Amino acid sequence: MSRAATNLQIDSARLWGTIHDTAKFGATPKGGVRRLTLSAEDKQVRDWFRKACEDAGLEVQVDALGSMFGLRKGRDMSKPPIGVGSHLDTQPTGGKYDGVLGTLAALEMVRTLNDAGIETELPICICNWTNEEGSRFAPAMMASAAYVGDFTTDDILSRRDAEGITVAQALDTIGYRGDAPVGRQKFTSFVELHIEQGPILEAENKTIGVVDSGQGVLWYDGKITGFESHAGSTPMPLRRDALATLSEIVLAMESIAKKHGPKAVGTIGEAVIAAPSRNVIPGEIAFTVDCRSADAAIMDALDRDLRAAVAEIATRRKVDVQLDLVWRKAPTHFDPKLVDAVENAATQLGYPHRRITSGAGHDACNLNTVMPAAMVFVPCKDGISHNELEDATQSDCAAGANVLMHTVLALAGVAS
Amino acid sequence: MSRAATNLQIDSARLWGTIHDTAKFGATPKGGVRRLTLSAEDKQVRDWFRKACEDAGLEVQVDALGSMFGLRKGRDMSKPPIGVGSHLDTQPTGGKYDGVLGTLAALEMVRTLNDAGIETELPICICNWTNEEGSRFAPAMMASAAYVGDFTTDDILSRRDAEGITVAQALDTIGYRGDAPVGRQKFTSFVELHIEQGPILEAENKTIGVVDSGQGVLWYDGKITGFESHAGSTPMPLRRDALATLSEIVLAMESIAKKHGPKAVGTIGEAVIAAPSRNVIPGEIAFTVDCRSADAAIMDALDRDLRAAVAEIATRRKVDVQLDLVWRKAPTHFDPKLVDAVENAATQLGYPHRRITSGAGHDACNLNTVMPAAMVFVPCKDGISHNELEDATQSDCAAGANVLMHTVLALAGVAS
Repeated sequence: MSRAATNLQIDSARLWGTIHDTAKFGATPKGGVRRLTLSAEDKQVRDWFRKACEDAGLEVQVDALGSMFGLRKGRDMSKPPIGVGSHLDTQPTGGKYDGVLGTLAALEMVRTLNDAGIETELPICICNWTNEEGSRFAPAMMASAAYVGDFTTDDILSRRDAEGITVAQALDTIGYRGDAPVGRQKFTSFVELHIEQGPILEAENKTIGVVDSGQGVLWYDGKITGFESHAGSTPMPLRRDALATLSEIVLAMESIAKKHGPKAVGTIGEAVIAAPSRNVIPGEIAFTVDCRSADAAIMDALDRDLRAAVAEIATRRKVDVQLDLVWRKAPTHFDPKLVDAVENAATQLGYPHRRITSGAGHDACNLNTVMPAAMVFVPCKDGISHNELEDATQSDCAAGANVLMHTVLALAGVAS
Repeated sequence: MSRAATNLQIDSARLWGTIHDTAKFGATPKGGVRRLTLSAEDKQVRDWFRKACEDAGLEVQVDALGSMFGLRKGRDMSKPPIGVGSHLDTQPTGGKYDGVLGTLAALEMVRTLNDAGIETELPICICNWTNEEGSRFAPAMMASAAYVGDFTTDDILSRRDAEGITVAQALDTIGYRGDAPVGRQKFTSFVELHIEQGPILEAENKTIGVVDSGQGVLWYDGKITGFESHAGSTPMPLRRDALATLSEIVLAMESIAKKHGPKAVGTIGEAVIAAPSRNVIPGEIAFTVDCRSADAAIMDALDRDLRAAVAEIATRRKVDVQLDLVWRKAPTHFDPKLVDAVENAATQLGYPHRRITSGAGHDACNLNTVMPAAMVFVPCKDGISHNELEDATQSDCAAGANVLMHTVLALAGVAS
């Protein structure tokens, strides 16, 4: 690699400027962003992104699900490009960095290469994947899932939001139903920069997370049927209390996740008492469970232990507990060579770093099932995301963008 | 007492008919009743009750909190009437008997006395107390509590339901804000018939419970403030999970009540997660606690043990738990002479009976603080109430109504 390429640094102020300039598309009063996929605000940021790509000399394609691809030519156009990017949609009360950082850092990388007059061997393609968040249309990461063949394009186009609007209608409304068939844009490999969305890097004072894996996910829907009765006149031994049952399940989930830790988490995020009243023993509760691990054997153990605990609690308390697995996603193991490339870039640039597992799902996890993929994490304040309080520092964002660029340069090769 | 009065029996079929006729006001598909206080359904049953009272020759008054009083004149109008009745509101998914039996048995008694041409020495006043249940507005039994001076009328009028509607607005909406000042209708004594709402009478094959005491009540409002964060990326040891905290509190309440049992119960009936999401660790939960005992020393112990447990859990889990006592009611000891009157009536009528403690709170418990009061219980199936499955037999309801009538006759005296 030439000396110019070796020492190359992205323009930190320019990257920071684009993050904050685009945050106005859907800005919330509390400093966050509400930019639901395929909304009017999403069209604003997409139009901005398309123009920025074109101004940077990229050829922009949009696929049938609205994912955007900006191609920078390489010397060897016989090979597919190195893909790099993330998403520009946000949660309903989301922050300025989740997805945005990875997409705009890819743009910043192209601008930096252009400024430095660096040509790569392989082409580079910067990406904005449609609907990573899944807040408006389910499932999350739907465009990359369709890209890898988990869903057909028609299936995804027919998904509806809470108002009954289909993905197809929403794409047409904002003019982003593209001509390119989903999957036609091939990649040699894919790299995504993202905020960690967890507290580990910050707690350990690491600037870069070299993401080597992503957690598998088990989602359950649960329902407890005990018996509703009077809180004053039902003796304790005769109760079949649905909330006391849930309480044991919550604590069992916690202790099971801890037992299989540190590579396991388990959460009951939703619990709704049917017809709650201060002086009525809860008779029925609906709840959801989210279990994750990056280790397939641990996922099996979580499932087994949770089901056994629930069965024991239900029997002992004489209540009925239904626990249905509604989604299972296998763990992601990112491509070892790509993970090494990320680590080498972090080492070479002198950033404190550590290997890390992604707790959340990302488009790169989907893409990794059909091509070598990897991710770069940077810290976010207090581990908070999916929240208007989401925050990250300019220097951490720049560090992540530099690691991203040098990983891509190593994968694409420098021609000049 | 005349032979006619001594042998007098209420009309079992007519009582049963009114119970089932009025159950249509707020009838649920599962056979229960949803008739929240001061709702449109409550207006329906109130209109029905007013007309039934007027048809029976009673003079109906409504007080400023909507409580309804139907006066049957006695020979000696210089003395206040014997009060008799209960309530017509229900839990959100309540049954057909709780409150309804006591109110309609009072009406049936008047109809029976009218049919038999019996005049009493003292007047009789049949009552429908507003908001006994406390499901829509807190506190429960608010009208009888205001009657005895525990709250001012203005305080109660300003209480709001979950939609922010005040008691005053709700009364005006259904046209039941009466002219009579709260407390103006005086009583010589008060007797209330009610289903047991517990399993004891049924288990012991007793038809009548002679209620000599009522449990004291502690009501708390609680709020847990942990930290909302991503269910996938927040390691178990770093969590401040509001639902796991609640779970420990629920189980602590259960074990504290058992420790002080059998004369103690404790229940968390409501728990609402703020902004629940499947993949977000609950950050904030509001909940309510209901603790009861008929023994004042045990009530103190429940309060002390619960507060200590909550403090320990909050500290260990690094979350904030606020626990505010919003209501404390001392145990009730019903008037010994009235309790004897109930027992005499049951003995005279030949019904198997026993002395019993009321697990639930009742308007009679409030009224007992300013006048002699007593209660009559009849069994309910499996001890179930506050539930659409609440059930009682026609013959037990009739037995209770007969004991009620003969107790009232003994207290009021028969003039002719």
